[in-house]
Amino acid sequence: MIDKGLIEAENKTREAALRADYAALGEHLDRRGIDIAALKDRAKGFGVAVPSWGTGTGGTRFARFPGEGEPRDIFDKLDDCGVIHGLTQATPTVSLHIPWDKADPADLLAKAEAVGVGFDAMNSNTFQDHADHPLSYKYGSLSHMDKAVRAQAIEHNLETIEIGEKLGSKALTVWIGDGTNFPGQSHMGRQFERYLSSMKEIYQGLPEGWQIFSEHKIYEPAFYSTVVQDWGSSLLTAQELGDKAKCLVDLGHHAPNVNIEMIVSRLIHAGKLGGFHFNDSKYGDDDLDSGTIEPYRLFLIWNELVDAESADLDLAHMIDQSHNVTDPIESLMISACEIQRAYVQASLVDRAALGGFQDANDALMASATLRAAFRTDVEPILAMARLEAGGAIDPILTYRASGYRKQVAAVRPKSTGGGGGIV
Amino acid sequence: MIDKGLIEAENKTREAALRADYAALGEHLDRRGIDIAALKDRAKGFGVAVPSWGTGTGGTRFARFPGEGEPRDIFDKLDDCGVIHGLTQATPTVSLHIPWDKADPADLLAKAEAVGVGFDAMNSNTFQDHADHPLSYKYGSLSHMDKAVRAQAIEHNLETIEIGEKLGSKALTVWIGDGTNFPGQSHMGRQFERYLSSMKEIYQGLPEGWQIFSEHKIYEPAFYSTVVQDWGSSLLTAQELGDKAKCLVDLGHHAPNVNIEMIVSRLIHAGKLGGFHFNDSKYGDDDLDSGTIEPYRLFLIWNELVDAESADLDLAHMIDQSHNVTDPIESLMISACEIQRAYVQASLVDRAALGGFQDANDALMASATLRAAFRTDVEPILAMARLEAGGAIDPILTYRASGYRKQVAAVRPKSTGGGGGIV
Amino acid sequence: MIDKGLIEAENKTREAALRADYAALGEHLDRRGIDIAALKDRAKGFGVAVPSWGTGTGGTRFARFPGEGEPRDIFDKLDDCGVIHGLTQATPTVSLHIPWDKADPADLLAKAEAVGVGFDAMNSNTFQDHADHPLSYKYGSLSHMDKAVRAQAIEHNLETIEIGEKLGSKALTVWIGDGTNFPGQSHMGRQFERYLSSMKEIYQGLPEGWQIFSEHKIYEPAFYSTVVQDWGSSLLTAQELGDKAKCLVDLGHHAPNVNIEMIVSRLIHAGKLGGFHFNDSKYGDDDLDSGTIEPYRLFLIWNELVDAESADLDLAHMIDQSHNVTDPIESLMISACEIQRAYVQASLVDRAALGGFQDANDALMASATLRAAFRTDVEPILAMARLEAGGAIDPILTYRASGYRKQVAAVRPKSTGGGGGIV
Amino acid sequence: MIDKGLIEAENKTREAALRADYAALGEHLDRRGIDIAALKDRAKGFGVAVPSWGTGTGGTRFARFPGEGEPRDIFDKLDDCGVIHGLTQATPTVSLHIPWDKADPADLLAKAEAVGVGFDAMNSNTFQDHADHPLSYKYGSLSHMDKAVRAQAIEHNLETIEIGEKLGSKALTVWIGDGTNFPGQSHMGRQFERYLSSMKEIYQGLPEGWQIFSEHKIYEPAFYSTVVQDWGSSLLTAQELGDKAKCLVDLGHHAPNVNIEMIVSRLIHAGKLGGFHFNDSKYGDDDLDSGTIEPYRLFLIWNELVDAESADLDLAHMIDQSHNVTDPIESLMISACEIQRAYVQASLVDRAALGGFQDANDALMASATLRAAFRTDVEPILAMARLEAGGAIDPILTYRASGYRKQVAAVRPKSTGGGGGIV
Repeated sequence: MIDKGLIEAENKTREAALRADYAALGEHLDRRGIDIAALKDRAKGFGVAVPSWGTGTGGTRFARFPGEGEPRDIFDKLDDCGVIHGLTQATPTVSLHIPWDKADPADLLAKAEAVGVGFDAMNSNTFQDHADHPLSYKYGSLSHMDKAVRAQAIEHNLETIEIGEKLGSKALTVWIGDGTNFPGQSHMGRQFERYLSSMKEIYQGLPEGWQIFSEHKIYEPAFYSTVVQDWGSSLLTAQELGDKAKCLVDLGHHAPNVNIEMIVSRLIHAGKLGGFHFNDSKYGDDDLDSGTIEPYRLFLIWNELVDAESADLDLAHMIDQSHNVTDPIESLMISACEIQRAYVQASLVDRAALGGFQDANDALMASATLRAAFRTDVEPILAMARLEAGGAIDPILTYRASGYRKQVAAVRPKSTGGGGGIV
Repeated sequence: MIDKGLIEAENKTREAALRADYAALGEHLDRRGIDIAALKDRAKGFGVAVPSWGTGTGGTRFARFPGEGEPRDIFDKLDDCGVIHGLTQATPTVSLHIPWDKADPADLLAKAEAVGVGFDAMNSNTFQDHADHPLSYKYGSLSHMDKAVRAQAIEHNLETIEIGEKLGSKALTVWIGDGTNFPGQSHMGRQFERYLSSMKEIYQGLPEGWQIFSEHKIYEPAFYSTVVQDWGSSLLTAQELGDKAKCLVDLGHHAPNVNIEMIVSRLIHAGKLGGFHFNDSKYGDDDLDSGTIEPYRLFLIWNELVDAESADLDLAHMIDQSHNVTDPIESLMISACEIQRAYVQASLVDRAALGGFQDANDALMASATLRAAFRTDVEPILAMARLEAGGAIDPILTYRASGYRKQVAAVRPKSTGGGGGIV
Repeated sequence: MIDKGLIEAENKTREAALRADYAALGEHLDRRGIDIAALKDRAKGFGVAVPSWGTGTGGTRFARFPGEGEPRDIFDKLDDCGVIHGLTQATPTVSLHIPWDKADPADLLAKAEAVGVGFDAMNSNTFQDHADHPLSYKYGSLSHMDKAVRAQAIEHNLETIEIGEKLGSKALTVWIGDGTNFPGQSHMGRQFERYLSSMKEIYQGLPEGWQIFSEHKIYEPAFYSTVVQDWGSSLLTAQELGDKAKCLVDLGHHAPNVNIEMIVSRLIHAGKLGGFHFNDSKYGDDDLDSGTIEPYRLFLIWNELVDAESADLDLAHMIDQSHNVTDPIESLMISACEIQRAYVQASLVDRAALGGFQDANDALMASATLRAAFRTDVEPILAMARLEAGGAIDPILTYRASGYRKQVAAVRPKSTGGGGGIV
Repeated sequence: MIDKGLIEAENKTREAALRADYAALGEHLDRRGIDIAALKDRAKGFGVAVPSWGTGTGGTRFARFPGEGEPRDIFDKLDDCGVIHGLTQATPTVSLHIPWDKADPADLLAKAEAVGVGFDAMNSNTFQDHADHPLSYKYGSLSHMDKAVRAQAIEHNLETIEIGEKLGSKALTVWIGDGTNFPGQSHMGRQFERYLSSMKEIYQGLPEGWQIFSEHKIYEPAFYSTVVQDWGSSLLTAQELGDKAKCLVDLGHHAPNVNIEMIVSRLIHAGKLGGFHFNDSKYGDDDLDSGTIEPYRLFLIWNELVDAESADLDLAHMIDQSHNVTDPIESLMISACEIQRAYVQASLVDRAALGGFQDANDALMASATLRAAFRTDVEPILAMARLEAGGAIDPILTYRASGYRKQVAAVRPKSTGGGGGIV
C-alpha cells in the first residue's frame, strides 16, 4: 500500500493549482448552467473493476517482455490492486480469473479487506489446458464435439461460480476461444447448439441473485470462425438462457469500422446489456489502455450509458487490457481515470438541448452538443474527487514518488520472459 | 427475345465439346461415387430472381456512364429479363421496385408472360423522394422523427404490397437508408423503436401467405449509424414482428472481414433466414457481379444452404448488383451462372465424409473435403442443364451473336449520363 | 456577406463570457508554462481552403436531397465562401473545380476580391464526362487504353492549370477515378505506366512556381482496383515526376485501420508531402465534417505537422467534404474550426517533455503528454482569434441570426433532388 | 524419411484413376489449345521453401496446444522437411531462423543432404530476447533509441548472414516487430531513420550475390504503429539501401480489403519485388494454410507473377504459417500443393485473349478469362508431376499410411503446452 503521508505530501504540491483550475471550471460550467459539485459527486460514485491478471505484464504470440517486480500470485496481484484503488479511488473491486487466481477463499477475503478492495465478476478459463484437467481444449471447450470435454468445461465453470460465491461475487463472465481455423472444420450450426446446451447447464447452476455474461469476439484465438463471434450470437445466447443472462461488450472484439455505441443501444433495447470489458484498439483485440487510441469512441459509449440511466441497468464494468510496454499498475490507473473521464464528460451533455436538436433534425447542432461536452476538460473534477476521497491528485507521479515498484521488485523474483505461442 | 434458331445454331458449334467434357466429368464423378445426372437435375431446378433495375447501367455518386440501348421503362426491362432467362434458364423471376416499375398490373402480367418470366419479391423505396410524395425522406422514412413522414412511408409499403399481390408476388423486401451522419444526430434507441413501430404497421398489412424481409446494411447512404446496421438488429426486427418476418442477407452489406456464412448459419438456427441479395464486393457495398471477387465465399454460403436443405427453408434468392462498366444483360447472365455454379459445387460436397472428419477434429481433411467440391469444374453440368432446357451452352457468346443490344439501341433513345450525387 | 454590425451585435452577447474563459485558460496555461497569446497568434495565422463545390448539398449514389438556396454557379458559391471566411476568419482561400467553376477569370477575380477570398489549388475532373469533350471517361482517363482519351484528359488538366494561372493559384491537384471493377479488366502494370506517362505530360506544363499533387484513394468509383490506390503508388508517381510533384493526403481515402499520421510522417521523410484534403470518416470515403467522428486522429495528424514545422514544408490544406444533411455553409464553418482546433491543440504539446519520455522509453508518459494537449479546451483561444480578426465568437449562431440562407433562398431557385447514380 | 516402397504402393492404388483424369483433362485442354505436358513440366519445376519453424505446432497469445512428436531441434525439423519434400516434390528448400536453428553448419549441411533439401533465405530474429544477448528488445531492435541495442541487433543480423553463407543461402529476410503501442511513444520519423541507418549497416555486410528482403506488416506485435507498416515504407527502405534490397510480401500483413495483387504489380514496376511469405488469412496475420480461405486471391497474385515472367524476376518464395490445430507436416504439404495449384492455374490463362479483351475494354470477358483458368481443375497435373518425380499422388493419405508421426512421437518427448503471452 502507498503510504497515506506520501499521498498527502504529493497532493500538497498540486493542490493550489487544482483548486484554481477547479474554481475556474466551476465558474465556466456555471455559465453553462451546470453544477460542478454534482459532477464531482458522480465522479466519486464511479467505479470500475480491475482484472487481477492485468497487474502482470502481458505479451503477444511473439514474445513477452516482463517488467520488474511482476506479481507472483493472486496475493501480490491484490497488493497491486490495492495500490491502484488507493491512488485513483476509482477501482473498488477486482475481477478474478480461475484457475489463475485459485486460493483459499478466506485468505482471499482477508487480503482483499486488507488492501481495501472487493470482488467483482468471476472469469472462467477454458481457452487453455489446465494442469489438473485430463482433457484438452485444443479443439474447443463448451462447444467441443466430445461430451466429456464439454462436461469438464461445464464443471470448471460451476466451480468458478462456487469460488465466487464464497467471495461475494455476483456474476460469471464466460468467454471461450472455441471456433475453427478452416472452413468445414466444424458444423457451425451444431457447434453453436452444443455451446448453448453447455451454457444452459451452467445457467442452471447460478445461485440466487447471480448473472451470467456472454462475451463475443470476432476472432482470435480462432481464425476462421468463432462460436460467439458477434453481438447477434451473444444476444441469441442470452435470449435462450433466460433473464439472468446478459451480453458483455469488449471494446476490442468487433469487426473493423463497427459502430460499438450502436450495439450498446441495441442491447439496451433488447434488455440484454450486461456490462463492459474496457480497453482500446486500433487494429484487432489490441487490449491497449482505455481512451488512448479513440477517446471520442469511449465518450460516445458512455453517452449511451448515461442516457439510459433512468432504465436503472445493473451493469458490470471491468478493465480488460494487456500491458506489454508499460508498468501495469500505471496503465490500470490511467485507464480507470480515462474511463471515469468519459463518464463525467457524458454526464455533461445538455440532454434537453440535444433532444431538441434531434427533434428538429438539426444534425449539426446535435453533433456539436456532444462535442461541447467531450471537449470540456474535466480533469479538475476527477482530481478533486480523488483528493476528497483520499486518493492522489496525480496518481502516476505519486506512484512513481512512492517507489512501490522498486520495493516489490526487491521481494518478487525476476520473471522469465517466455516466448510467445509461435515457438 | 433471342431467336430460338440462333440459340440452336450457336449451341451446335459447342455441343460436341460439351458432350465430351460432360462425359469425362461424369466418369470422374462416378469414380468419386457421385451421380452427374442428379447434379444436372439440381442445376435445372435452380432459379434466382433478376432485379428489374439491374438491367440498366448503374453508377456511383461520382458519375454514371450509360451504355447503348438502356431500357426506358419496366416493359423494356422485362424484355431484357426475358433475354437473360431465355439464354441461361436460371432466372425465372423478376423482382420489381416501386415506384420505379409502377405500371398497370395487367400489362405487367401480360408482358411477363410474353417474355417467359414471373414475379418475385417486391421492393419498396423510401431512400429517395418521390415526385408524388409531399414529404421528404432526407432525414429518414420509417424511423423519421415526424409521424407524418412515417405514415407516408408506411403507406408506400402497403401500396407496394398491393401491387405485388396483383402480380402474384409473395414477399416484400424492406431496405431503408435511414440512419445518421453524425454522433448525436438521432437518439439511436428511439429511432429504432420508431422503425419497429412502422414495420409493425406494414406487417399488419401482409396478405395471407406473404413474408416480409428485413435487410440490414452497415453503412451508405448513412455514414455514422444505420438503423438496421447488422444482422443483430435485423434479427431483433424479425423477432418483434412475428413468424412472417425474416432476415435478408446481402453479401456486400457487412463490416470488413465478417464471416457471412456464419451469419447464414446463425439465422438458420434462429429460424429467421429469409433469403439473399447476391453480388460480390471487395471494399464496401460494391455491388459487383456475383462470384467475380471471392468465389470461395459464395461457395461457402451455398454450402450452408445445401447443408440445411432438410430443414425445408423457403428462401428468396435475388441478384442485387450495379453494372457500371459492363452490359447489364451480360453481367446478370454471368452472375446467375456463378450463383448456380456455387450451388452445384456445394451439392457435390461429400457430407458423410465431412461429418466424419468434423467428428474426429480432423480440420485438415474436413477443409480439404470442401475444397475438393469447390475445385471440381462443374461447367459441363451447368451448360448441359442449359442446353437441355432450351438455353444457350454459352449465354454470353450467343447473346453477342444475336445482336440484341444493337437492335434495342436502335429503338431505345440514348440515355444521358447524369452526374452522381456529388454535384 | 454577413453584415458587420450583426456580427458585432452577436459578439457583444458572448464577449464577457469569452473574456472570462480566455482569462481562466490563460492562467491555467501559464501554470503549465504556456503563453496563451502566442497560441492565439498561431490561431490567427491559420487558414484552410474551402472547396467551391462544398457549398452545395452533396449526395450519395442513392439520392441527393438539396437544401434551400443552393448556389447556382461559382459566383453564388463564392458568395457563400465569403460568408464562411467572414465569420470564421479561417478560410481565406477557395479551391476551384474545373469544369464546374469555369467562368471569365476577370469576373472570378473581381468576385473573389469582393467577398474577401483568394484562390488555392485547382482541381481537374476526369471522373465525369464533360459536355464539350467528345470522348468518354467510362473506362478511364489519364490511364485509358486509348491514346486519344488520354490526350483529351491531359489537355483538360493543362487547361485547368491555365485557368489557375490567371487566378493566382499555384498548384494543381489531380485525382482520377481510373481503375477497374473486375480482376483482369486491365493490366495493372501497364495501366499505371500509362498514368505516369500522362502525368509527365501535365508536369511539363506546370508554370514556374507551381506544384502538382497526386491524390490516392483505395476505392470508389472503381471497386476492384484503383490506379493510385495508396500512398505507395502516389509516392512512386511523385518520385517519377520530379521535385514539383508531391502527394496529397485525404483522410477518408485509406484502408480500414490504417495509421494515417504515420503516412504523414513517411511522406515528410521522403520529402513528398504536399498537403491535405480534410474531412472525417467511419467506414469509407464518407466525406463527413472534419473532427466529428475521430477528433483524436485529426489531432495526431496535426501533431506530426506541427512537429515538422522546422522543416518549413509548403503544404496545401483544403477541406473536401460532402454535406448531405446539413447546411453546407454551417458544415464548412464547423469543419474549419475543428481543423484549426486540432492545430492549436497540437501547438500545445510539450515537445521537450515528449522527447524526454520518448528517449526514456516511457510510453505511458509520452502518450499522456499528447493527451494533455488534446484535452485542453482551446475554444476560448479560437473564439478570441476570431473576435480580434473581425469574425464571430460563435459562427454558427451568428450565421443563423443573419438569415443569410433565407435571403439567398429567395433569389436562388429551388434545386431539383436528382436521383443518385443507381437509377 | 518415408519409405519409397510405401509411396509406390500407395500410388499404385490411385494411379489408374489419375491416368484417366489426366487423359481427360489433356483432351479438354487440347480443345482449348493448351498443351498439358507443358503445364506438367511447369508444375515439376515449381518449388517453395518450407520454414523450419513451421514444422512445430504454433499457438496464439492465449495458448499453444502441442501435437504428438513435436520436433526437438533443427535436425528433427529437417527430418520433417525431408518428409514434406519427399511426398510433394514441391519444397526443395528450407528457410532457417536464427537463433532457433543455430547448429554446426557442417552438421546442418550433412543433414540437409541426407533428407534431400537445400537452404533458402535466412531469417533473423530481434522480436524476442535471446538468452545470450545482454540487452532487451522490449522497446525495439534495429530502430531502438539506444545505439547499443541497435548495435546488438545489427550484429545478430550479420551473424545470421554469416551462418547462411556457410549453408549456401543467398538472402536475408529482415522482419522486425519494432513499433509502438501508444501515440507519442516514439517519434515516428526519427524511429524510421534509425531503422534505415541500421539496415544500411547490415546491407554493407551482404556477401557477393546476396539479397536483403525488407518485410512489412501493418500491426502485431506493435499495436499502434509499426516501423515498416506497409509496402510504401518497405519500398522507401529498399530504395535507400540499394540494388540488393528488395521487398518481401507476406499475404497476411496488410490492412483489411487491401488489393495485394496490385501491390505485387507496383513492386514489379518499381523493380523491388523480392518474394513472398505465403499463407492465408481472414482477419489479421492469421497465418493459416495457403489457399484455404481465399483461393482466388492466391491465384490473382500468381497471375501477376506469371504475367511478369518475361522480366526474369529472381523471387524468393516461402511458406510462413502457424499450424495450431493440424499436423504441421500435413498443413505444409497441403499449402505447398495449393501454392503450386495457383501457379499452374495462372499458367493456364489465355494471355493473348486477355490482352485483347483489355484493349477493347471488355471487362466482362477479361474477367471471365481469368475465371476460366481458375476453375480448371488442375489436380491431375499436380498429381502426375508428383508421381513422375517420385512423390505421392496423394501426399496426405500416403503420409498417414506411413505412420511417420507415430514413429517420431515414440522418440521425441511430449512437448509441454505452454501458456501464451497473456499470462
